[in-house]
Amino acid sequence: MNLNRIHAGFLVAVILAVLGTTTVFCADDPLASWNDGTAKKAIIQFVTDVTAKGGPKYVDPEARIATFDNDGTLWCEQPMYFQLAFALDRVKAMAPQHPEWKAKEPFQSLLTGNLKAALAGGEKSIGEIVAVSHSGITTDQFAKDVLDWTNTAQHPRFKRPYTQCIYKPMVDLLAYLRANGFKTYIVSGGGVDFMRPWAEKAYGIPPEQVVGSSGKTEFQMLNGKPVLMKLPAIDFIDDKAGKPVAINRFIGRRPILAFGNSDGDQQMLEWTAAGSGPSLMLLVHHDDDVREYAYDRKSPIGALDKAWDEAVQRGWIMVSMKNDFKQIFP
Amino acid sequence: MNLNRIHAGFLVAVILAVLGTTTVFCADDPLASWNDGTAKKAIIQFVTDVTAKGGPKYVDPEARIATFDNDGTLWCEQPMYFQLAFALDRVKAMAPQHPEWKAKEPFQSLLTGNLKAALAGGEKSIGEIVAVSHSGITTDQFAKDVLDWTNTAQHPRFKRPYTQCIYKPMVDLLAYLRANGFKTYIVSGGGVDFMRPWAEKAYGIPPEQVVGSSGKTEFQMLNGKPVLMKLPAIDFIDDKAGKPVAINRFIGRRPILAFGNSDGDQQMLEWTAAGSGPSLMLLVHHDDDVREYAYDRKSPIGALDKAWDEAVQRGWIMVSMKNDFKQIFP
Repeated sequence: MNLNRIHAGFLVAVILAVLGTTTVFCADDPLASWNDGTAKKAIIQFVTDVTAKGGPKYVDPEARIATFDNDGTLWCEQPMYFQLAFALDRVKAMAPQHPEWKAKEPFQSLLTGNLKAALAGGEKSIGEIVAVSHSGITTDQFAKDVLDWTNTAQHPRFKRPYTQCIYKPMVDLLAYLRANGFKTYIVSGGGVDFMRPWAEKAYGIPPEQVVGSSGKTEFQMLNGKPVLMKLPAIDFIDDKAGKPVAINRFIGRRPILAFGNSDGDQQMLEWTAAGSGPSLMLLVHHDDDVREYAYDRKSPIGALDKAWDEAVQRGWIMVSMKNDFKQIFP
Repeated sequence: MNLNRIHAGFLVAVILAVLGTTTVFCADDPLASWNDGTAKKAIIQFVTDVTAKGGPKYVDPEARIATFDNDGTLWCEQPMYFQLAFALDRVKAMAPQHPEWKAKEPFQSLLTGNLKAALAGGEKSIGEIVAVSHSGITTDQFAKDVLDWTNTAQHPRFKRPYTQCIYKPMVDLLAYLRANGFKTYIVSGGGVDFMRPWAEKAYGIPPEQVVGSSGKTEFQMLNGKPVLMKLPAIDFIDDKAGKPVAINRFIGRRPILAFGNSDGDQQMLEWTAAGSGPSLMLLVHHDDDVREYAYDRKSPIGALDKAWDEAVQRGWIMVSMKNDFKQIFP
């Protein structure tokens, strides 16, 4: 060992770090939770390309926008969307104040433990459950209630908090992108007020970088204090063709990397692919029923059908949970 | 001069800079375009307080959110909102493709140069003018058109591009706040698609930190390429009680500093003041008809009436353009 060389290397590392130069991981693999394969290789190649100053694919840091779907992409979405589990728990907790629910569907079935019957009404039933459980409350109180729930509720199969049912390889990817100057966003069909309270701790994504569906809110004076009251009315559904609309509305820049897992993400990936510079489009394929779940074309939740066909046709990266994820949960 | 002391001082400065320590301006006054007075003093005191680590009013950098109205706060809004001037110019340019406008108000009056008659229909007329001039075009093309307009159109009185009719003291304030770890946002009644193309160059505020009113957009395939088409329908009006709603929707954090100039900003300031920590609320008072304009309680544009009363009552800072602004435009 030549101490002088070590010393010089240390100095160079310190200088690079303090100058804020793009951090490229060498000694440690930043995607250690990913198996070596096409997906991992494509990600690293893309990040290397867009951060290579002077290179033909270089992208300025402020344009390095990466958008991620949440349900089924960053965290699990089975056996039901976690937000629906939250809504169901909330309805149960609210039931003592609503004796009329004992004779009213879908609440009656839900409260007697017949979940299947409660949800048999499809979107209408789910809409009613979400409406009553996500309104008549201030945004501040709702955020507190969401956090309380994430601290107590458990996933029925994995027996861990829902916020621990996030995918370690995706969390590592988010960190890797940020270390390379990317701004990482969630663009999800899930409710923005539901995701923001825990997204920063779980993913390192701050509230202002969480885009989602929303209910209407109203500015009101409550005991002389201004509050935002959540109303039982939908404001915006951030899914399918709504995703590019929301990206334009909230971010105002086109992503250069978009990651989804279902047909709900197809338009977001198309919008990203239509940019004038380099871009990378990826889809998580749920093909691991041992460690997680296996579902795709025919699934009632998170169907991956048309987007899969388009991915094959256009060379978007299909990420196999079975083969590409060395580890699933943290 | 002691060269060793200079050398040591230089080293300390370099170390502070590279470590990203809060930059406090000493030698140069970061608010040199402000006259010394109550407003400047209050701003510097507030910034000093919330950045004093360990102090009783310290605020973490990620919570240092500052929201600014645009029209009348960051740039001039007389003799008409600049976006309306843009819309009028656009209608004139579009007229050859719309022969039917020759017999249809408000276009007929507008095209014959009778602006007063064209706008006599009030909000309805303005709505029609904005609708035709802000729709039937992709978001990408619209952004280009806005930029073209800002590069050619001139303010009728100041004979300079509209984007040079921004207030130098406010631009300096934005920079001063950012240098102290604040994230600066526009929260304006103006259209988000109208502001984003030039806001970064004018104010240093990137697209994703511009919140505004919006029209509906639709994801469409145009010649096989995905576009967002602007529709002639209002999506959201970011004014009055809409401002706290938008702040919650887009930012998801409560500002600790809010700056407006009219009753349209009253709720934004109330929402900011209702936070649990330190906060600073400010209003620009247009009282300088020599260098800019003088208007307040009775003005059809940018009326400052109820918000003024509340400011006096609650000790919000009134900023006099005449007395507090050493300079108006850059």
